[in-house]
Amino acid sequence: MRPTAAVLSVGNEVLRGSVVNTNAAFLGKELSSFGFDMVAHVVCADDEDVISAKLRELIKQANLVIVCGGLGPTPDDVTRQGIAACFSEPLIFSKLQFSRLKNLYKKFRKKVPSLVSRETYYPRNAQPLLNRFGVALGFSVSTQGGLVIALPGVPVELKNMYVDIVLPLLKKRFPKVQAARCLIVRMAGISEPEVMKRFGKDLFTDSFDFGIYPMPGEVLIRILCDRQSVFLRLKKKINRRLGDRIFCWDDKPLTRVVGDLLKKKKKTLAVAESCTGGLLASEISSVPGASQYFKGGTVTYHRTVKEELGVPGNMIAKFGEVSSRVTCALAEAVRKRMNSDYGIGVTGIAGPGGGTRLI
Amino acid sequence: MRPTAAVLSVGNEVLRGSVVNTNAAFLGKELSSFGFDMVAHVVCADDEDVISAKLRELIKQANLVIVCGGLGPTPDDVTRQGIAACFSEPLIFSKLQFSRLKNLYKKFRKKVPSLVSRETYYPRNAQPLLNRFGVALGFSVSTQGGLVIALPGVPVELKNMYVDIVLPLLKKRFPKVQAARCLIVRMAGISEPEVMKRFGKDLFTDSFDFGIYPMPGEVLIRILCDRQSVFLRLKKKINRRLGDRIFCWDDKPLTRVVGDLLKKKKKTLAVAESCTGGLLASEISSVPGASQYFKGGTVTYHRTVKEELGVPGNMIAKFGEVSSRVTCALAEAVRKRMNSDYGIGVTGIAGPGGGTRLI
Repeated sequence: MRPTAAVLSVGNEVLRGSVVNTNAAFLGKELSSFGFDMVAHVVCADDEDVISAKLRELIKQANLVIVCGGLGPTPDDVTRQGIAACFSEPLIFSKLQFSRLKNLYKKFRKKVPSLVSRETYYPRNAQPLLNRFGVALGFSVSTQGGLVIALPGVPVELKNMYVDIVLPLLKKRFPKVQAARCLIVRMAGISEPEVMKRFGKDLFTDSFDFGIYPMPGEVLIRILCDRQSVFLRLKKKINRRLGDRIFCWDDKPLTRVVGDLLKKKKKTLAVAESCTGGLLASEISSVPGASQYFKGGTVTYHRTVKEELGVPGNMIAKFGEVSSRVTCALAEAVRKRMNSDYGIGVTGIAGPGGGTRLI
Repeated sequence: MRPTAAVLSVGNEVLRGSVVNTNAAFLGKELSSFGFDMVAHVVCADDEDVISAKLRELIKQANLVIVCGGLGPTPDDVTRQGIAACFSEPLIFSKLQFSRLKNLYKKFRKKVPSLVSRETYYPRNAQPLLNRFGVALGFSVSTQGGLVIALPGVPVELKNMYVDIVLPLLKKRFPKVQAARCLIVRMAGISEPEVMKRFGKDLFTDSFDFGIYPMPGEVLIRILCDRQSVFLRLKKKINRRLGDRIFCWDDKPLTRVVGDLLKKKKKTLAVAESCTGGLLASEISSVPGASQYFKGGTVTYHRTVKEELGVPGNMIAKFGEVSSRVTCALAEAVRKRMNSDYGIGVTGIAGPGGGTRLI
C-alpha cells in the first residue's frame, strides 16, 4: 500500500480564480513521483475555522497533508492560527526566525516591521522550517498517521522549500516508499478515440491504472503499474500499435524532444511567428539549455515587419498574410536572417474570442 | 446573504499535477463575479465512489456545485456514474445527443464509435446540456438547496458552455443575486509590507473583505464590500496614500493598461528580448486588439542576432550582453528596425534552476 497525500491550498484569491493553483499541480507531481497516492486537493478561504475544519478532514484521509498559502505578514494570513486551532495548540515565538529577519532587515538598514514579525510564530507542537527564499516561516507537525507540513504560497518559495527541506524530511519519515512505475506515451497527429481504438480492449485484461488525456496538438497516455512484467508487455504492444504517432516515451514536452534532437545533431533553429505572438519562441527558450540551439525568433505581427524580414510584398498581396506560401517564406526568411539551420514560420488568425464551434 | 458555490474537478491527471487546474480558476472568477460566495475547490480521483462521496459533501456546503472533467468517452471517465450514484439514480440514454453525434460523424463519413456513444448517457434526474464545442454531454441536476452542473474538463469546451448555457441557467435559478462590489488596486514599484504600512491600520475600522497579493513585479489589493459609502471612502483614501504606485484601478494586467495608452495616443511598440525569450511579446500580443499598436518583437537569444539587429559588437564586448547599455541599444535597434514609436529591450540571466536565495 502506498501512503496517501493531500494538498490544502489556503486563499480567497485562489478560490475566486485570481490566481491559478500552480502550487497544487507542482506538489501533486512531486508527491506522486515520490510514491504517494494523491487523494485530494482542496482550496479553502482565508478563515481560521474553515482551515482548521478542512485540515481535520484531510488528516483523516491522507498520511501527508501539505498546507500552502496564508503564512504571510498581512491580517488576511491566518493559516498559522488555523493549523494551531486544528491541534488545539497555541502559537509560539521563534527566536531563531526573528534573529534571521533582524539580520535581513539590517542589511537594508531597517528594523523588522511589526507586520513582518507576525511571521515568527508557529504552532507549539510544530517544528519550524526555515525559508531561505523569503520571510514566511514554514513548519511541520507530526501526527498519529503521518505528517502535516505548512509552506508559503509564493510559488518560488514553495518550490525551493520543497526541494531543500520537505523532500529530505519525507525521505526520513516515509523511508520505504518507492516511486510508482509510470509509463507515459506522448503522441501527435492522432485523435483520442483513434488512440483508444488502436490501443485495444484486449490490453485491459491486466490490472493497471490507465489515463488518457487530449491536449492541444497531442494525446497523452499515462499508465501506473507496479508489476514489471505487465509494464514491459504493455510498452511493447503500445509501440506496435501506436508507434508511428509517438514522439516521446517520457513526460517531455515536444519543445524538449525537438531541442534534444537539435543538440544531438548540432543544428540550430530560428522562428518567425505572427498570430502566436512570441509564444512559440517563449516555449522553445523555456527549455533549459535552449541557447545551445535556439538562435532567436521574430514576431512579425505587422505586414510591414514581414516584408522587412524578407517576405516579398507581392507574395503577401497575392496569397494573403495567412497562407502556406507566406508561412514558408517567413520560415526561410528568418532562417537566413538569423543564420540558423532550420527556420519555422507560423501564421494564422488567433481571435481572443474563444474556440471554433464544432457542432 | 450571498448564495454559495463550489467546484469539484475530477481527474487523476489534475491530482497528480500533470494538468494545472485552470478550470477551477476560470469558474472561481466567473462565479464570484456573478455574486456567489466561493466556499471550496476540490480535486478528486477518477473513481465513482469518491466522486459520489465528495459531491455529497459539497452539496451540503454550497448552493451551486459545478463538477468538471471525467465526461469523456474513455473507460477512466466515470463522472456520469459518480453523480448518478450520489443521487441513487440510473443513467439514461439521450436520443437527441445521439442523433447530433450521428450527424457530426456523418460529415466525416463515419459511424459513431462505440466508445463515443458512452457520451450519450446522463443521470435520470438531470437535464442534458448540449455541448456545441465538443462531443461530451453536460447536464444539470436541481437539488433541494440549489443546483449541480456537470461540464466537460476540456477548457475550451467548459468555457464556451459556461458562457452559452450555464450563465443563462444561473440567471434563471438565482435571479436576485447581485455581483459583489469589488475594488481592485494594482501597484508596481512597491513591496507588500510597504503597501500595508501606507494603507494604514485605521482603514480597517470599517468591515470589508480585504486581500493583498504580491505577484511578480506588482502588488494587488482586492476589497469586497457591499456598502457604497465605505467603498467610496476607501477608494479616496487608498488613492491619497498609494496613488503614486497605482497603475490600474481594475483587474487589467499591465500589458493591457500600456496597450490602452498606446491606442489612445496612436503610438506603436516593438520589443527585443533576450532572456525572456519571447514571453514579453507573447504577453503583449495576447491582449485583444494588440495588432493596432504592437508592431512585433524579436528574440535576440544569441549575440550574433543582437549584432545583426544593430547593437555594435564592440559595445557588447565592452559592457557585456547583460548590461544597461546593451539593453538600451537593443530597444533603440528594434524601434528602428520595426519602425515603431517605442522600443523595449530586455536582457538578463534567466536560469531555469529556480529563484535567488534571499537569506
